[in-house]
Amino acid sequence: MTEHANLDVLRRVAETIESRKGGDPDQSYVARLFHKGTDTVLKKVGEEAVEAVMAGKDHATAPSEATRKALVGEMADLWFHSLVAMSHLGIGPDDVVGELARREGLSGLVEFASRPGNAGR
Amino acid sequence: MTEHANLDVLRRVAETIESRKGGDPDQSYVARLFHKGTDTVLKKVGEEAVEAVMAGKDHATAPSEATRKALVGEMADLWFHSLVAMSHLGIGPDDVVGELARREGLSGLVEFASRPGNAGR
Amino acid sequence: MTEHANLDVLRRVAETIESRKGGDPDQSYVARLFHKGTDTVLKKVGEEAVEAVMAGKDHATAPSEATRKALVGEMADLWFHSLVAMSHLGIGPDDVVGELARREGLSGLVEFASRPGNAGR
Amino acid sequence: MTEHANLDVLRRVAETIESRKGGDPDQSYVARLFHKGTDTVLKKVGEEAVEAVMAGKDHATAPSEATRKALVGEMADLWFHSLVAMSHLGIGPDDVVGELARREGLSGLVEFASRPGNAGR
Repeated sequence: MTEHANLDVLRRVAETIESRKGGDPDQSYVARLFHKGTDTVLKKVGEEAVEAVMAGKDHATAPSEATRKALVGEMADLWFHSLVAMSHLGIGPDDVVGELARREGLSGLVEFASRPGNAGR
Repeated sequence: MTEHANLDVLRRVAETIESRKGGDPDQSYVARLFHKGTDTVLKKVGEEAVEAVMAGKDHATAPSEATRKALVGEMADLWFHSLVAMSHLGIGPDDVVGELARREGLSGLVEFASRPGNAGR
Repeated sequence: MTEHANLDVLRRVAETIESRKGGDPDQSYVARLFHKGTDTVLKKVGEEAVEAVMAGKDHATAPSEATRKALVGEMADLWFHSLVAMSHLGIGPDDVVGELARREGLSGLVEFASRPGNAGR
Repeated sequence: MTEHANLDVLRRVAETIESRKGGDPDQSYVARLFHKGTDTVLKKVGEEAVEAVMAGKDHATAPSEATRKALVGEMADLWFHSLVAMSHLGIGPDDVVGELARREGLSGLVEFASRPGNAGR
């Protein structure tokens, strides 16, 4: 993949998701999620996180090309459904990546650890 | 944010995370996560997903600039800890974004795989 | 509900769940979960936890008889699917309730807070 | 454990939790959770669910007395923090166990599978 493709993909996926708003729930998976509403959209984020965690356990326990591929797939599911939730709630990948850039710029990842509530984690 | 400022952020964050491997757990939050091991690293993905879901509920129920900012922050936490888990398990953002691009190409939603330079990915 | 019913119910539900092992996946929801295997069974625990969290947010934000009933229902779903996971993995409610009793007997819930890893939570 | 020893545990734990309301956050783990508020209390339910899922994976992958004990401990953590959340939100174990009894009475667990939204799970 070219250097440029990385960002383009996230924005393109976000735009495709956005375009599904108001679409036919019978024709589009994303339109169906939007149609079911906030709780369904948010639940998917939690659900995919659990699946990513389980795929991570599998890959950590007995790594193979199959467990690696499954882990990549589950992380892609998690990010995809994060993007669906973002779209539903009026934010996008630029906001999130921008926030990551802001933190990095401020203090090279030190900021996260020093925020209240993260110290003991 | 310009397209370029955004472009390398995920890779830069992933590289910074990677550089924390074997670091002093007392000096770096990420080194501390790595030091504690797979279950701690993966647990954070689930934990941040739940926090993102709760921030999403707040923003959906009574949206304000504060709830929007909190949601962006929790989604950034989720993606950040996804990147920590990926690094711990030997994958990275290129794998995940590449998988999203592959699916997009397969589903024919956006013409990508057939673009010059992307063929054969 | 009589005092006695509390325990009886958990054991009865656990026994009913146990009896679904090897049953027809087309006839029984629990048999279907068992048939799909460990990841499906465990994923439901995470999924129901997220639903309980969202129902908790709703009830905390704008409590009504409807949000209360929904919360009770989601907590029941969480405990039910915990019992399914326990059965699948060879433990049961007596083990879990026994562990809660053991902790309470040891030090009146102080033990939990003093176990390594819980200090900062 | 005798039937009787087990019988009152959930209610006793719930009562002990209830008694921690307004307690000194520096002296009691549960008082600290209540003091931090709804999001902290609910987050623990999600967090413990993820830990139970990971302990379940460990026990399913390579079962031993140690993984069994860890699984029982994580399920106890999950139920304990469910009880904390219930107390915070004004419900209790009788509500949840009562709901499980109600469903069982209605149709021997068949009801769950036939509720809208559960059919395909």
